[in-house]
Amino acid sequence: MVIAVDAAGGDFYPENPIQGGIEALNDDDSLNLIFVGPEDLITKELSSHSYDENRVQVLHAPDVVTMNDSASAVLKSKKQSSISVGISAHKEDKCDAFVSAGNTGALLAASTIILGKLQGVLRPTIAASFPTVRGISLLVDAGANLELKPEMYLQFAKMGTIYSKEILNIDNPTVGLVNVGEEAEKGTELHKETHKLLSNLDNFYGNIEGKDILTGKTDIFLTDGFNGNVILKFGESIPGMLKEVVGKAVKEMELTEKEQQMVYKLLSETMQAFNYERVGGVPFLGIDGVSLVGHGGSSPTALKNMINAASECVKQRVNEKIVNSVN
Amino acid sequence: MVIAVDAAGGDFYPENPIQGGIEALNDDDSLNLIFVGPEDLITKELSSHSYDENRVQVLHAPDVVTMNDSASAVLKSKKQSSISVGISAHKEDKCDAFVSAGNTGALLAASTIILGKLQGVLRPTIAASFPTVRGISLLVDAGANLELKPEMYLQFAKMGTIYSKEILNIDNPTVGLVNVGEEAEKGTELHKETHKLLSNLDNFYGNIEGKDILTGKTDIFLTDGFNGNVILKFGESIPGMLKEVVGKAVKEMELTEKEQQMVYKLLSETMQAFNYERVGGVPFLGIDGVSLVGHGGSSPTALKNMINAASECVKQRVNEKIVNSVN
Repeated sequence: MVIAVDAAGGDFYPENPIQGGIEALNDDDSLNLIFVGPEDLITKELSSHSYDENRVQVLHAPDVVTMNDSASAVLKSKKQSSISVGISAHKEDKCDAFVSAGNTGALLAASTIILGKLQGVLRPTIAASFPTVRGISLLVDAGANLELKPEMYLQFAKMGTIYSKEILNIDNPTVGLVNVGEEAEKGTELHKETHKLLSNLDNFYGNIEGKDILTGKTDIFLTDGFNGNVILKFGESIPGMLKEVVGKAVKEMELTEKEQQMVYKLLSETMQAFNYERVGGVPFLGIDGVSLVGHGGSSPTALKNMINAASECVKQRVNEKIVNSVN
Repeated sequence: MVIAVDAAGGDFYPENPIQGGIEALNDDDSLNLIFVGPEDLITKELSSHSYDENRVQVLHAPDVVTMNDSASAVLKSKKQSSISVGISAHKEDKCDAFVSAGNTGALLAASTIILGKLQGVLRPTIAASFPTVRGISLLVDAGANLELKPEMYLQFAKMGTIYSKEILNIDNPTVGLVNVGEEAEKGTELHKETHKLLSNLDNFYGNIEGKDILTGKTDIFLTDGFNGNVILKFGESIPGMLKEVVGKAVKEMELTEKEQQMVYKLLSETMQAFNYERVGGVPFLGIDGVSLVGHGGSSPTALKNMINAASECVKQRVNEKIVNSVN
């Protein structure tokens, strides 16, 4: 297994990708890594780690993509970026997968254009792991396709089901269509048609509503990328909001030092439910390759988990199963 | 001022509408109320309250609308419901406004069909008060129109601005367009066009994202009714989710009885920020009348606040200002 790691992506490069990579490497003897990015940066950072040098390569990519670069601009003007170079190496079978904490749009564009779509897939999609009270649900589409057709919803449901089973280890994942009411006739014409089409799936639960997201009513939340993006960012804002309102309440209640410590410990325990590190990365499903992206702020642990998820995608033949499922 | 109150709507009728109504009545000498619903129910409930009988009327409406009745069915088969009878009384100028904790869809349909739209208004909209860390923002459209055109977004922005100023007492309310990114060129073609059109407004902030909702980045969150409905229900589910995860953390941390009491007091203080009672009801903006709806579970306080908001809509001539603004 060879995984290429973007060593020039995210808010904390090259430190976090390299530390996460080395941790994954030291955990798994069958793993080989290619760090992609400016060679001098990588070499310098690697020198402070101890690891099996035979299983690590460096692939030079001098251009650095920022989080604000537009996807199309990156492909045109930064041809030697870690994303372009890494995904091209994947295309040339020099590695089995590519992971990055960098620019999502740029990685999606590079993955789609350079690797191409899997046979029969209408559109690649982003499947985000969404923490709920019940565990982890998969939000598909999390922002790749702002507008969908019923056939795309159906394919996303199938691809999400395979990812949930094979990578998130959910036995019989249920699919819920995000809508404005539970009944089949709710929503726009598009949603009614989609509901009808999805009813052919064994694991279609039916419509779910905004109130069913945090409770994790289904294992897969199916929605268009517009709504998915709003839901995802809304969800991610909850811990920060909570910190602020709890802080206010702590002040108003004039708690003792000891009580305050207990409250903040409780808050941090509570927030474990919303810890994105557990899941690491977000896959692009439907592309002819394995490509995962993580939060810009990904910790070394998140990057390690991302590498492991990529590795599992290869081992479990997720793409082969997707092709069988959509054709 | 004469306000008609649906005494047969919501989960706790006739108790809550009548108690809330009597509280509002006893607070304001210039207020007159008409309770609409099954006469015997209302008369019996009123007998346990003390109030100025000269300022209270009962309007008999034997049919009871449930929360599950479809809007169109109500108008056809339950012509003598409190909603139909109350809105018809409003149409005949027997009252200045109608408030209900009942079926939102049925009230919207009755309001639109019986009262009609204000001159120049393309579509009536639901404007929901949304609790944020900063206070209250207005979510428009909260579910009335699942799909919008740019001109409708513009009108909703104008109507929301008037309601925010006149009823929520926000001096210079800002309007944010809910989108998948901050930049003007983000989103679908529809969102790009809408952004352009909104740029003519003095109080247009620009695009906002899912992460900007709970922080209350703008005073008005402008979105279509599909996305608005999902956001609203997602937001309303946060307190319940919090109770569950805090409960789990409390167990795991094995807190003492006293510590637990403190934590639950803190939780309830924290949740004050998300207390929907503060705002009471949600107006239908753009109809030729004043019609507000509240949560099915509305408390007497919520109903009292809803009556006061309706009264303010009349006093502040919200509809006259809307007509001037959209034409």
